Amino acid sequence: MTHVEEMLRTYPADLGDVDRAALVRCIEECFDCSQTCTACADACLSEAGVADLVKCVRTCLDCADICDATGRVLSRHTGYDANLTRAMLQACVTPLGKDAQGHADRPD
Amino acid sequence: MTHVEEMLRTYPADLGDVDRAALVRCIEECFDCSQTCTACADACLSEAGVADLVKCVRTCLDCADICDATGRVLSRHTGYDANLTRAMLQACVTPLGKDAQGHADRPD
Amino acid sequence: MTHVEEMLRTYPADLGDVDRAALVRCIEECFDCSQTCTACADACLSEAGVADLVKCVRTCLDCADICDATGRVLSRHTGYDANLTRAMLQACVTPLGKDAQGHADRPD
Amino acid sequence: MTHVEEMLRTYPADLGDVDRAALVRCIEECFDCSQTCTACADACLSEAGVADLVKCVRTCLDCADICDATGRVLSRHTGYDANLTRAMLQACVTPLGKDAQGHADRPD
Repeated sequence: MTHVEEMLRTYPADLGDVDRAALVRCIEECFDCSQTCTACADACLSEAGVADLVKCVRTCLDCADICDATGRVLSRHTGYDANLTRAMLQACVTPLGKDAQGHADRPD
Repeated sequence: MTHVEEMLRTYPADLGDVDRAALVRCIEECFDCSQTCTACADACLSEAGVADLVKCVRTCLDCADICDATGRVLSRHTGYDANLTRAMLQACVTPLGKDAQGHADRPD
Repeated sequence: MTHVEEMLRTYPADLGDVDRAALVRCIEECFDCSQTCTACADACLSEAGVADLVKCVRTCLDCADICDATGRVLSRHTGYDANLTRAMLQACVTPLGKDAQGHADRPD
Repeated sequence: MTHVEEMLRTYPADLGDVDRAALVRCIEECFDCSQTCTACADACLSEAGVADLVKCVRTCLDCADICDATGRVLSRHTGYDANLTRAMLQACVTPLGKDAQGHADRPD
């Protein structure tokens, strides 16, 4: 239902030896995840126990933004940079730490 | 392949008499269009005749951003506001004017 | 503190007779509003009475996304289109309707 | 001219021992960078030698998206997670690799 594969197939320059099926799926998942997390944050807001779900809302909002940015970066092939792609993919798979109070656990 | 329909089905509050199939398709199209336009702008950059495609690149970048914002607005149902939804959908279907030079045709 | 004005001054093509001071301010306000609304939605989540603020959270999230897209559109001058600019600005100033229950007030 | 500091000051919960001045500046720089890179990509499109600037356009588009997402993540304090913040900041400061042809240098 998406056009990710078609856009990749018609890209006018060389894509190198990238695994196209994996790339298509990764792009699709990024955009789908961005939508799902946006909808999940909103669904939490309509739950009777929203006060217990604020951490979930926040995580969903972050995830939506990060997957959106990653899906866009992955959709570009001109002037491709592996370091940047890797950094964004690593952000996507970052394991969340234990619940912190305030910013006590802020990175150094 | 997307989770739009599933997220809509599990939304915990009343959605009123909205046409769910139309809403699902509209959300899916917004996110797909955002990806396609991002990829199209990038493909133009790798064309030999990129100098002739700069208007296309710009339009694609705008379209990607507007569809992204619209897809997010449509994915939220809590505190739904018809005026805002309508305004964003109208932005999505705005017919582009004739090519303008610079900002001579700027809105009043 | 922003670079909006400097970027406009160094734009290499003709900007026509646009009111530059107004354009600079409008772009700055879009990005500032996007940040403020993102922070406001988050602040609501940390309020004791978050259950009474869910409509505010949703409105802030929409506003952040719409102002972000509008600020990006306004930051582009190549292949400028007045219709699209007008549509996004109108979305930004859309008066919210009275609180609707679910999607009963969905646009036609 | 921005409201970043004011929003941080009125945040209703504990922010821990975060360096507020640094946080304010970081958020402001993310949003400013997102605007500047959006404008820079557009300015490149209006340069006579746009064909030589496609790598710059692409890098600017990526940078705009990543700084946007990072500015949003940094603007949220509820349910703060240090790992995620660190991952996004690292993406922001990722040194670009040497120019790659196609995706030959794709991450493993």
